[in-house]
Amino acid sequence: MPFADDLPVPVGAWAYPAAELLLARAEQLALMTEEPSRITRRAFTPTMREVQEQVAAWMHAAGMSVRRDNIGNLIGVYPASTPNAPTLLIGSHLDTVRDAGKYDGPLGVLAGLACVEQLTASGQHLPFNLEVIAFVDEEGLRFHTAYLGSEAVSGDFKPDYLHLTDDEGITLADAIRAFGGNPDRIAQDRRDPATLLGYCELHIEQGPVLEQASIPVGVVTAIAGQTRMAISFRGKAGHAGTVPMQLRRDALCGAAEFILAVEAYTRESPDMVATVGRINAYPDVSNVIPAEVTISLDVRHKDNSHRQRVCKMLLERAQHICITRHLTLDWRIVHENPATPCDPALSGILGAAVQQAGYPLLHLPSGAGHDAVAMARITPICLLFVRCAGGISHHPDEAVQVGDVAAALDVLHHFVHLLANQLSLGTEQ
Amino acid sequence: MPFADDLPVPVGAWAYPAAELLLARAEQLALMTEEPSRITRRAFTPTMREVQEQVAAWMHAAGMSVRRDNIGNLIGVYPASTPNAPTLLIGSHLDTVRDAGKYDGPLGVLAGLACVEQLTASGQHLPFNLEVIAFVDEEGLRFHTAYLGSEAVSGDFKPDYLHLTDDEGITLADAIRAFGGNPDRIAQDRRDPATLLGYCELHIEQGPVLEQASIPVGVVTAIAGQTRMAISFRGKAGHAGTVPMQLRRDALCGAAEFILAVEAYTRESPDMVATVGRINAYPDVSNVIPAEVTISLDVRHKDNSHRQRVCKMLLERAQHICITRHLTLDWRIVHENPATPCDPALSGILGAAVQQAGYPLLHLPSGAGHDAVAMARITPICLLFVRCAGGISHHPDEAVQVGDVAAALDVLHHFVHLLANQLSLGTEQ
Repeated sequence: MPFADDLPVPVGAWAYPAAELLLARAEQLALMTEEPSRITRRAFTPTMREVQEQVAAWMHAAGMSVRRDNIGNLIGVYPASTPNAPTLLIGSHLDTVRDAGKYDGPLGVLAGLACVEQLTASGQHLPFNLEVIAFVDEEGLRFHTAYLGSEAVSGDFKPDYLHLTDDEGITLADAIRAFGGNPDRIAQDRRDPATLLGYCELHIEQGPVLEQASIPVGVVTAIAGQTRMAISFRGKAGHAGTVPMQLRRDALCGAAEFILAVEAYTRESPDMVATVGRINAYPDVSNVIPAEVTISLDVRHKDNSHRQRVCKMLLERAQHICITRHLTLDWRIVHENPATPCDPALSGILGAAVQQAGYPLLHLPSGAGHDAVAMARITPICLLFVRCAGGISHHPDEAVQVGDVAAALDVLHHFVHLLANQLSLGTEQ
Repeated sequence: MPFADDLPVPVGAWAYPAAELLLARAEQLALMTEEPSRITRRAFTPTMREVQEQVAAWMHAAGMSVRRDNIGNLIGVYPASTPNAPTLLIGSHLDTVRDAGKYDGPLGVLAGLACVEQLTASGQHLPFNLEVIAFVDEEGLRFHTAYLGSEAVSGDFKPDYLHLTDDEGITLADAIRAFGGNPDRIAQDRRDPATLLGYCELHIEQGPVLEQASIPVGVVTAIAGQTRMAISFRGKAGHAGTVPMQLRRDALCGAAEFILAVEAYTRESPDMVATVGRINAYPDVSNVIPAEVTISLDVRHKDNSHRQRVCKMLLERAQHICITRHLTLDWRIVHENPATPCDPALSGILGAAVQQAGYPLLHLPSGAGHDAVAMARITPICLLFVRCAGGISHHPDEAVQVGDVAAALDVLHHFVHLLANQLSLGTEQ
């Protein structure tokens, strides 16, 4: 699936074949699925074990010591050049959504592995331990809650989660046990922040910004906060043939006015996205004026106070529309997630690595959530996005270019060395 | 269910008790239903027979000769003062929708009956036969096609209809036979236009115009023509968190812009109504930008060429929206009904009757269809609307005021006498 790329891609000699290998490995992992002819890999399943065993074998071969923590995250350690060194975590997840693509998750794990393989090949050790961590659950497909793996590591895993059941009625506790984990000791999975340098995640963008800019990688500024609302406009039903326009209280016209207001307002607000994804009219009959229309509204921005201010303005706008149109409004916040800013210092090093590797430096927010959200609670995070075709993700059409993966690996290589240099300087002071 | 009425209502002394009686009879007919605790009366059923027998008894008592035609319409004849006189038909239908009100249909039949009773009481005969016709099927609930009764009389009944089946698999032919009719002779139900003076129908407004104007009755100018469309806007799905506003091709925003354009354009166009009653988004998920939105559009106006011009302008507007937003458009006409103008001469007499009875003369179009649509093909028609509460119809909340029914009966009384005078003058010339 080729797409336009006007930039020359100056990539370290090792990176291109490493990227080819990474993509071949992603293909191999994609064959390990619970459903024939599509990729579905839930947490704590035999399929997840199969994929972990394959990744563990690659980790071993790369000179890493491999373990699984109590919830079942797979961790490979490439030791530092000195004892008692701190640890840099590089990772992402190995579970998928239903009918998934090949790269959302595996790309970040395999990139960490490739980074270690390059260090091994050149016989280098860094002044920090490099751990590649493959989280067992990020998408939340099986237990309908996200970040189970990374929340165990960040210490945010709640014991109540163990009573969650999957669609077959199996509890999370039993699923972890069957997977070889120990649900009673998950609190011990929490990493001590004092031992950590940070967490770096490499992920497909899941959006079209890099493709539009013709740039292979981008440095994430923050993972956007999100407010999800359910909004109802209530008017009055009536005969489509007999109620004059002036006497109508059409709930759908009110909703339409609001949908356009959301779009117009959001377009003026940089880095803001707002989406009305669902709409349902009642009675939904062609010859009856809609009495009630319910919509979803999803608002995201990297700055919490800005997002909340916009939600308040949109509420006021909806209220004004309802007053003008003699409608009533029901406005309910369904879900709210604060924004997670990336660490400025660590992201600064990642940005320097991008430039050192010869790419233009583009900053962008992440509208989707990642394991980095949980990890940010215990350690500085940074996040590198890789251009993906058409911004498509969570879909079999997910695609990345080998040149872009090579660029990302090259950036990651520069990143760990810049970090090593900085740490050495810091130590020497 | 009282509602505001600022007008003094000058009603002939006979009309008020006649209206009370009419409403009591409507209550009585409402008890004859196929479903307990709600009014549902399909054509050609034992319940329809029961209601016809009751109305026939009242017709007999009013001095009318009563017959049923081949399809099963009930007809009562009050003879003219002279032989070989032409005939004025007054009528409406006795079938209902499911869970109906008490007045849509029966009001027009019972008004014709009341008119004859007043003539009988005063010993008057007119220079024309007055026939009260109660159509057996107008709503089309049972065979999913409207106007079966009036189309038999207008000669538009198609023999193919006889093969239509109801939800139990009974053919229309068998239903007519079981009802005592003769499906093979329906062509004989057609009335000879040369023998007819016209058809007058009295009906609840089914809209709020008279209530808003605080006027009990109104003269209908035309039964609006209708175009029904199915319209799809197609854009591109995308992640609600990751696709910037500027790069979206949001089908719902396009549909919203069109819905508001329909409303704005139609508000400027007198007597035009246009309704988007249905809307469906795909994939209809809160965190996905809508890829496709399908809506219904129902446009009605009393003038065919104006309606078609507006539909064309709306199509152009939708095309323009799609070009601007990089969407594709699918525009399909599902159903088209031409407008039926009321007869200017007969409606002029009806308007004069309104004024003679002392009411302000208000003209309005009918957005809903009536038996008059079929009858217009063989004879001049006029249609008198009676104010109804909140414009509500096809619903148990259907309500009329006794004063308004009295006004309508008074107008009908003036109408037949004005017509008689005009006919006598014409004959004497």
